Amino acid sequence: MNSSKANLEKVHESIKDLIHRTPIMRSDGIDELLGCEVLFKCENFQKIGAFKMRGATYFMHELLNTEIERPKAVVTHSSGNHAQAVALAAKMNGLKAYIVMPKDAPKVKVEAVKGYGGEVHFCEPTLEARESNMERIRAENGAVFIPPFDHEHIILGQSTAAKELIEDTDELDYILAPVGGGGLLAGTALTANAFSPKTKVIGCEPEMADDAYQSFKSGKWQPSKNPKTLADGLKTSLGKLNFDIILEHVNDILCCSEKQMLEAMQLIWERMKIVIEPSAAVPLACIMANREMFKGKRVGLIISGGNLDLGDFFKLLDQKRSS
Amino acid sequence: MNSSKANLEKVHESIKDLIHRTPIMRSDGIDELLGCEVLFKCENFQKIGAFKMRGATYFMHELLNTEIERPKAVVTHSSGNHAQAVALAAKMNGLKAYIVMPKDAPKVKVEAVKGYGGEVHFCEPTLEARESNMERIRAENGAVFIPPFDHEHIILGQSTAAKELIEDTDELDYILAPVGGGGLLAGTALTANAFSPKTKVIGCEPEMADDAYQSFKSGKWQPSKNPKTLADGLKTSLGKLNFDIILEHVNDILCCSEKQMLEAMQLIWERMKIVIEPSAAVPLACIMANREMFKGKRVGLIISGGNLDLGDFFKLLDQKRSS
Repeated sequence: MNSSKANLEKVHESIKDLIHRTPIMRSDGIDELLGCEVLFKCENFQKIGAFKMRGATYFMHELLNTEIERPKAVVTHSSGNHAQAVALAAKMNGLKAYIVMPKDAPKVKVEAVKGYGGEVHFCEPTLEARESNMERIRAENGAVFIPPFDHEHIILGQSTAAKELIEDTDELDYILAPVGGGGLLAGTALTANAFSPKTKVIGCEPEMADDAYQSFKSGKWQPSKNPKTLADGLKTSLGKLNFDIILEHVNDILCCSEKQMLEAMQLIWERMKIVIEPSAAVPLACIMANREMFKGKRVGLIISGGNLDLGDFFKLLDQKRSS
Repeated sequence: MNSSKANLEKVHESIKDLIHRTPIMRSDGIDELLGCEVLFKCENFQKIGAFKMRGATYFMHELLNTEIERPKAVVTHSSGNHAQAVALAAKMNGLKAYIVMPKDAPKVKVEAVKGYGGEVHFCEPTLEARESNMERIRAENGAVFIPPFDHEHIILGQSTAAKELIEDTDELDYILAPVGGGGLLAGTALTANAFSPKTKVIGCEPEMADDAYQSFKSGKWQPSKNPKTLADGLKTSLGKLNFDIILEHVNDILCCSEKQMLEAMQLIWERMKIVIEPSAAVPLACIMANREMFKGKRVGLIISGGNLDLGDFFKLLDQKRSS
């Protein structure tokens, strides 16, 4: 993979008008509480509400600029943010998107995909069913598969979040990013390596889905086993290509408990007044679980997204109204 | 009251380094849904999480720059955002703040006031008890009372939110602000009158606390009667000084139901990924309840604050974790 400065610049240039340059936010209260300076790169404000838009947009750009024949459609399987990203990126390019979703996917996410014009196909909630359905639709419709993380274009696309973070801040001691499939973390590591080599890159993971931690510490790829975390975006196993990059360029992987994740999430909602999903709280939870390590440091932290089901909360409020 | 351009500029100049210039946000999705362009002035990102910081800061500035003798302390009574604003503004100026709060005030708000160094005094939850306790503390400590809305300095301080909104956007057809005591709405009207006279200013109120609507339509000040709204910031009666300004400079007052308010609140949380309190959703709810009026227009809307108790929501998430 070409992760030279020049190529990372070219990647960013090719998508920057199609995505949002998300703001960097901070909180005096959180800095005081943790004894370090935390700069939050707010990808919850990205199109579709998550960083996944970057990778999907770059994949689409490469697809339309390098293939001789324009593809008829794209296809993916996902129950989460990648589904929305592919649907919107396809819509922006006038392509049809087929999205295979497990039949137990949250209604709010299914509606979001449909809202972006994606054609939803339901299947059994197993990886096997998802892949076989995707494969069938791909073959029947001449569609191109857009993978969620284990692909060069996706990793390069996700690398642009850290690039903006580095450009918009003074030199960072650390950059923290959550790790699920590893697209964001691998891209972040490549960017830091090219543009800010003194900055240490740390992957952050819930203990309940610690396959990246186990793989990193043992040096051998290990799959995610029956992960039971509220961080639905981080349940997936690390991609193989992603793992190679992470082993080479990431400095460490830290873990947090589910309780710490919820505490960090509530802290961000209350102090910063932004809506973030559980996965996005994992890096702050890892700081809270390793305070000494970050004391006095300047830390960039990627808030990966802000998509979650708020229905229950608003039902509660509605009950208060009626009572 | 001197509401000339020059004086409003002077007011803004005197506090601008002490407050945040909050961002203006927008959402393609919301614009499409409503058929108009909505520009959200996000005072939920203001210090203490609400526009109240502006008025308290300006009052404090005038207090310290016009009184011959430096006051020993300040005092107010409030269960809400004004309490936090006075506590923080006092802290920033090295003054002691006494805050009288009803004993049933939400714990999260009491803790916030204490966090800003305010000395909390509890009293019975009636206006009479609040005022008599405040009066006693004021006399005993030589403290200066900082009123929540019915005062020239407070109105002028709140006027700076709309001033920034006007400066940071193209000409607006409308500016919408919620109305409780009327500090924000009166300040907004004075600002629009001075800096953008073609812009119509609309006050927005829940039907369940419609004293400003009733007063405006009848031309006679009418108190709030047993208001039962989730918009806790808007339960209070309109100030007398505020009412005079509103009658003269505000174009109309619109109302929304509690259900519409919650729908608007959920829409903002989900689409914009920002945490706003119920009161702050009232203007968008009023657009949703009066779509024809705003069709094709450019509308500035002041998001008044983002302080609410999130404990129940995080309890729900924690239950999911344990299950």
